[in-house]
Amino acid sequence: MPGIKHLLIISIAINAGLVLKFLHDGDEWAGRSVPKGVLPEAKPANGLQTLSRATDMQDQYINLDHGDPTMYETYWKQMGDKTTLVLSGWQSISYFSDTKNICWFLEPGFANAVTRLHNLVGNAQTGNYHIVVGTGSTQLFQAALYALCPSNAPQPMSIVSAAPFYSSYPLIIDCLKSGLYKWKGDASKFNKDEPYIELVTSPNNPDGSIRQAVVNGSGGILVHDLAYYWPQYTPISFQADHDIMLFTLSKCTGHAGIRIGWALVKDKEVAKKMTKFIEISSIGVSKDSQLRAAKILDVIADTYEHTQKFDKATPFFHYGYNEMAKRWRQLRSAVSKGQTFSLPDFPVEKCNFSGQTFGTQPAFAWLKCEKAVDDCASFLRKHKILTRSGTHFGSSEKYVRISLISHQEEYGEFIQRLSLISCVYAT
Amino acid sequence: MPGIKHLLIISIAINAGLVLKFLHDGDEWAGRSVPKGVLPEAKPANGLQTLSRATDMQDQYINLDHGDPTMYETYWKQMGDKTTLVLSGWQSISYFSDTKNICWFLEPGFANAVTRLHNLVGNAQTGNYHIVVGTGSTQLFQAALYALCPSNAPQPMSIVSAAPFYSSYPLIIDCLKSGLYKWKGDASKFNKDEPYIELVTSPNNPDGSIRQAVVNGSGGILVHDLAYYWPQYTPISFQADHDIMLFTLSKCTGHAGIRIGWALVKDKEVAKKMTKFIEISSIGVSKDSQLRAAKILDVIADTYEHTQKFDKATPFFHYGYNEMAKRWRQLRSAVSKGQTFSLPDFPVEKCNFSGQTFGTQPAFAWLKCEKAVDDCASFLRKHKILTRSGTHFGSSEKYVRISLISHQEEYGEFIQRLSLISCVYAT
Repeated sequence: MPGIKHLLIISIAINAGLVLKFLHDGDEWAGRSVPKGVLPEAKPANGLQTLSRATDMQDQYINLDHGDPTMYETYWKQMGDKTTLVLSGWQSISYFSDTKNICWFLEPGFANAVTRLHNLVGNAQTGNYHIVVGTGSTQLFQAALYALCPSNAPQPMSIVSAAPFYSSYPLIIDCLKSGLYKWKGDASKFNKDEPYIELVTSPNNPDGSIRQAVVNGSGGILVHDLAYYWPQYTPISFQADHDIMLFTLSKCTGHAGIRIGWALVKDKEVAKKMTKFIEISSIGVSKDSQLRAAKILDVIADTYEHTQKFDKATPFFHYGYNEMAKRWRQLRSAVSKGQTFSLPDFPVEKCNFSGQTFGTQPAFAWLKCEKAVDDCASFLRKHKILTRSGTHFGSSEKYVRISLISHQEEYGEFIQRLSLISCVYAT
Repeated sequence: MPGIKHLLIISIAINAGLVLKFLHDGDEWAGRSVPKGVLPEAKPANGLQTLSRATDMQDQYINLDHGDPTMYETYWKQMGDKTTLVLSGWQSISYFSDTKNICWFLEPGFANAVTRLHNLVGNAQTGNYHIVVGTGSTQLFQAALYALCPSNAPQPMSIVSAAPFYSSYPLIIDCLKSGLYKWKGDASKFNKDEPYIELVTSPNNPDGSIRQAVVNGSGGILVHDLAYYWPQYTPISFQADHDIMLFTLSKCTGHAGIRIGWALVKDKEVAKKMTKFIEISSIGVSKDSQLRAAKILDVIADTYEHTQKFDKATPFFHYGYNEMAKRWRQLRSAVSKGQTFSLPDFPVEKCNFSGQTFGTQPAFAWLKCEKAVDDCASFLRKHKILTRSGTHFGSSEKYVRISLISHQEEYGEFIQRLSLISCVYAT
């Protein structure tokens, strides 16, 4: 491929000064403490200058450590006032939304919108399920643990998940040293003959793999986190019907700041206990947030079911799919410029929702540093790219997790830097 | 007072049939299980027909077990579109609100509104405090415990509060069997020589008393819950400057469904750890809720500082004060019709905010059943008034807590029933 080689040489020549600057700046920071993001959405460390689109990007850190879904802002701006919500001063007075529902703080409009969207996309059954709303799926995950662990057991229940697992699981589970449950790490190494809960995240955070339970024990209960089981990220190949399925607005529509998640729960008693946990921990969930979420989910469904209302607007999941496809193409292209990095491959399947055949294009890249680079996160940090080390996910420091759903400008700058690094180390 | 006696006799005569109906209906329900409200705002038990203003009140249960602040709906309706908030579809995308703030999910507009209102009312200092926002003050209370209890202590920290204490404290503290802290009950009985946290609620829930710490130990840390330290409930006699002070929108403005609380925290490290807890448990707090709360708090301040904008509208706290004063007059009048019930008296003080001199007029009545009635909650339930028994507050079943901040119609019906019971048992 002489053409590509030629381009590479030109690219290196043009950017040589810039590269040296990167390396120099990197060294400057090498001795400093790392901003350890403990949650998937950890804030940039205070005082660390991170990328602001209004200023010169080259000197700034790009923070892709957390999964802030700012990519979606562009779409919602394009939609203008279609999702505008007006809230009057006398709304949201009462704690109660629907006293006849097990989840008494669930806004009926939100419940309807959730059901409608799942029925449209076909990613989860809703027929015999109870909906429990939470302050993000993070709260629902804790509610599920509370509901599933007996309060009178002699030992805390073991909670496991196959590595690489979502980095927040250990932190959330062990933060209060609960006597009800305890984090026991990698599910593939769990072989005790005792009750356990296995957390199955599919597509998986951080590596995008399609997951099933791995523990072979008899006393296991499964909790499925399906935050990324939407058609912009992965083919919708079946209608999920697990006992407990968790979803979050953040990764579905991009509205992380609304803090809304929902659980589809088969068992009535589990739904009751999950509701009780949310009653105890925050006396319900913001009504305003539920009303906004309902509006947004309904507009998404409308872009498919009432297309005439939306002129030439791209329906939401198609926009997300195209954007993710483009970003993955750019990423794979950057990585392929050298042998410094590698990325996982994903099996190709047909999506029942869109009819398209494609491989998972996850919200995060699980990037591996090849060759002599051992600590991948530190290596990238020297080039002012902040990522989360594989060590946080029960994996090796050879890996990092990188958010692919940040602002376009930020993502473009990241791709440019990664290409450059790939090229430089390839020569 | 022959006049009053005369009226009483007439009242009894008129309502005799009604009373018999009440007593009869009460008996019908006597054997059924009690809807045990475990939180201050517990939902009405499913299937239990509670008061709906559109239907005939006399046959229905009045649920005053929880503290749903629906009283305030009337005021906010009167204010029309003054507090209307418009949210665009592209708002609330990011998890972050202000990465320079310790509490990185705190909306700057909300922080400003909180500071402005405290400065206006004079109920708490804000100068050297960090603001931490929470999903109601319930989440902040847990964040405070997490922040104050060392993670490596050999024993869980003892948490105490003087009886009668807020009924949710034991439930929240012990629900996950935390190894960090443990509920140890009535602070006035705590005499161990070990570190402890004392929860001081003032005015107190359930009994409205003005509180100070009661434990005499040396290793104590105090958390002040000042949810009711607002001028509609009690004279603002000093500007509170405790280490950790918790407030909630629910009891200040009545917007319980928005789920917003805030903490004023003196120590930077404590504020950081509280923020970390909220990051772990719900990755921040709804931005929409914060924006609405900011709007509402700003309008309240405007009704005092920019009166010309509001035509003849009563400023918010004056409305609340008048309404609470009226309700307490009605309640004391109903109770004084017989010797069945009694209520606490409160010392009279001057309010620095309003200039008025009055006694606390709490959001809850701490009603005592006198004479032969032992189980006050069951007694009232027979008359279709649902209250929360004193036993939930570490006190006697002779007491009940009754919400005084429900809808006007509901409250009116309650007063009518209570008057009737007072009269009947007085004869």
